[in-house]
Amino acid sequence: MGESRNRLHLAVFLLAGGHHVAGWRHPDAAAASGVHDFHYYKRLAQTAERGKFDAFFFADVLGIGQSDRRYDPSNVRLDPLLPLAALAMVTERIGLVGTVSTSYNEPFNVARRFATLDHLSNGRASWNVVTSFKAEESSNFNQKSLPDPKLRYERAREFVQVVKGLWDTWEDDALIADKENGVFSDDSKIHFLNHEGPHFSVRGPLNIGRPPQGHPVIFQAGVSEDGKELAAETAEAVFTAWSTLDQAKAYYDDVKGRLARYGRKRDELKILLGLIPIVGRTEEEADRKERELQELLLPEVGVAKLSYMFGHDMSQYPMDEPLPKSFTLGDKDGASRRFQVVKETAEREGLTIRQLYERYAGNRAHLQVKGTPEQIADVMERWFVSGAADGFNILPPYLPGGLDDFVDLVVPELQKRGLFRTEYEGTTLRDHFGLPRPANRFG
Amino acid sequence: MGESRNRLHLAVFLLAGGHHVAGWRHPDAAAASGVHDFHYYKRLAQTAERGKFDAFFFADVLGIGQSDRRYDPSNVRLDPLLPLAALAMVTERIGLVGTVSTSYNEPFNVARRFATLDHLSNGRASWNVVTSFKAEESSNFNQKSLPDPKLRYERAREFVQVVKGLWDTWEDDALIADKENGVFSDDSKIHFLNHEGPHFSVRGPLNIGRPPQGHPVIFQAGVSEDGKELAAETAEAVFTAWSTLDQAKAYYDDVKGRLARYGRKRDELKILLGLIPIVGRTEEEADRKERELQELLLPEVGVAKLSYMFGHDMSQYPMDEPLPKSFTLGDKDGASRRFQVVKETAEREGLTIRQLYERYAGNRAHLQVKGTPEQIADVMERWFVSGAADGFNILPPYLPGGLDDFVDLVVPELQKRGLFRTEYEGTTLRDHFGLPRPANRFG
Repeated sequence: MGESRNRLHLAVFLLAGGHHVAGWRHPDAAAASGVHDFHYYKRLAQTAERGKFDAFFFADVLGIGQSDRRYDPSNVRLDPLLPLAALAMVTERIGLVGTVSTSYNEPFNVARRFATLDHLSNGRASWNVVTSFKAEESSNFNQKSLPDPKLRYERAREFVQVVKGLWDTWEDDALIADKENGVFSDDSKIHFLNHEGPHFSVRGPLNIGRPPQGHPVIFQAGVSEDGKELAAETAEAVFTAWSTLDQAKAYYDDVKGRLARYGRKRDELKILLGLIPIVGRTEEEADRKERELQELLLPEVGVAKLSYMFGHDMSQYPMDEPLPKSFTLGDKDGASRRFQVVKETAEREGLTIRQLYERYAGNRAHLQVKGTPEQIADVMERWFVSGAADGFNILPPYLPGGLDDFVDLVVPELQKRGLFRTEYEGTTLRDHFGLPRPANRFG
Repeated sequence: MGESRNRLHLAVFLLAGGHHVAGWRHPDAAAASGVHDFHYYKRLAQTAERGKFDAFFFADVLGIGQSDRRYDPSNVRLDPLLPLAALAMVTERIGLVGTVSTSYNEPFNVARRFATLDHLSNGRASWNVVTSFKAEESSNFNQKSLPDPKLRYERAREFVQVVKGLWDTWEDDALIADKENGVFSDDSKIHFLNHEGPHFSVRGPLNIGRPPQGHPVIFQAGVSEDGKELAAETAEAVFTAWSTLDQAKAYYDDVKGRLARYGRKRDELKILLGLIPIVGRTEEEADRKERELQELLLPEVGVAKLSYMFGHDMSQYPMDEPLPKSFTLGDKDGASRRFQVVKETAEREGLTIRQLYERYAGNRAHLQVKGTPEQIADVMERWFVSGAADGFNILPPYLPGGLDDFVDLVVPELQKRGLFRTEYEGTTLRDHFGLPRPANRFG
């Protein structure tokens, strides 16, 4: 059983066009031109809140890939923190998770931005820490080549330390605001950080009061050794992606097992597994929806997505033949571990490139579950109970229809089984996740 | 007459506690503990919009000064872009100006953040470009000493070029969003920037469509030679601060005169002058309000503010004696030009340190105008008509009461004289300022 007592946690993972690569073309998808429009995001966040989700999760990448630009709405990305600040105005309880890179930002700015979001949302902010590993990102930030992964993670580790430290520079009761005597703040409760490390020298204090949650919740998505270690040391929630139960369980035990060496308990970190639900009221309806999506997948988009997954231009190979002999993945980082499994499956089953993209391009090898609400809840319950996850990050194949389906059909089934809350019990994201409020190191 | 036909422009310049250093203690000021609370900013922005202001202007500094920390609510600053994104949800027309430093950010991130704000607000975003010159800022960003001003401005100049370039990387009609044929964007209308300069190497394209305004409006506050030149080359609005008409006119002519060498017309840059209004329905009421504020000014706060203005610890000198002989200002940058005038006045009139802080600590040597709505409008009209400004950046001495007074009493008087709009005529900040929408360099 997941560590979170008997309730699982739910987030929705936002990619502008939905998670099936052709999802934006689906009849139940919003107008694709709406990706710049706040109303689109507002509707999604309010739907997730209606479903009592723990969090609304905004992905981010700092550049545009070349392979499938013509076909991919996820090349449009708002800076996550701004729509999240706006969403704080039109939602009441749901957590607001923003992805921000440690490689192309400064810790003082990031600490202040999330402190601001936490104040604006009354304690619902969370930072998804990423290190940015794509060439289309580094080339926008003065880098001629990709930064070394080891160095990226070293910087990320120190970056998170500095940010957490800055969040403590104001004690909770530092703000006095005594108009009568003219004393605004208690100087003895505002501290220098005086951080001096290999990557950062940051004096502080931050110029904003301590966030309502003490620290906004730290999310991470570590898959590599360095990533898992960073998660075990610093993260309070992890987003991960596995398509088999055994892999997911192994990862879960691995990361949870690392916590002790940082003096942390197993339930101080929640692991949320990516899940693409294709929901029908009947099996036939679910089949039809999947078929509709697959029929919208253009071959050139399928091949382009496969090229992205494999880090290779796949259009150079014949479509109806298997992968070339001794084919290797071009990219060694992050997501490629998931895609390695795709390649192994292709080789084992002798799939052609066409068969391969038909099976994986839509879901990018995330766990995809198709069926009735009961069938989807069955899978979620089994994975949760077997200790593969503390909850799920829902990746609707198209938006808003795919999220509507999940909230209206699957959530009630989970609630009926006692697996998911029927009402928010607290007001902050820490409350929803059952995470303690961090003590102040200076306090 | 100002260049903007016969109408002046108005912005409100936001500092959390108001612009008189003791303003937060005034009975008509909000609870000082509200500085972290969105409702405070919402009320202010909605008031300014009720007054048909062109823009709501969020100041920023990336650190806390030490001299008057106990007494100064402006040590609490939300990251400007987040409350502005939230304010876009609760306002309809008013422009949203956010201050962001070119010294401690990356152009790709800044371009995307303002593009996002421009999309969220349907064309109301503006970037106030600052270079950050304070020691309490540089020490939060890995710097052992203040960066060289020359270098800071060189970086700023290139930074703004890159940002404007990135805003052009999507042509206005690059997004096709053709669900039927599965074509999301027109690849031939999305461009690499391929910028290579001394400070930045940025490939692009940006991962968000062209902002509704083409480019969000560029604000600047250049006072030094480098600053004025940067403004003439890149800015479309300038915020400046002078307390005498002659100085303001000289500055106005100086900056406007520099535009031609960049092929720009005089009305392509609007100059807004800082103005602290102390408004009474009668002269007696205005006198009383000023007296109330002055009585709330604690001597240690006055001396601390003077120390800030002079870049020197002024508490080491006897309070009731004049400035020591051969006294010089400690800080040579930005605001100190305004404060140089304070020192010269002190020497000319033989003012003691106490008299000096009583006169200047409250208003930090900004133009302060006290009186009835007619008297204040008289001053504004005279300065506007004599070509000292295209409009004013209003610095209410306390908030929200000081802004309420201006909007309810002075704005109607300006409208009666035909000096200010009675209704918004356009929807974007460019519309309000009468600025053209920039052509796309790639289009």
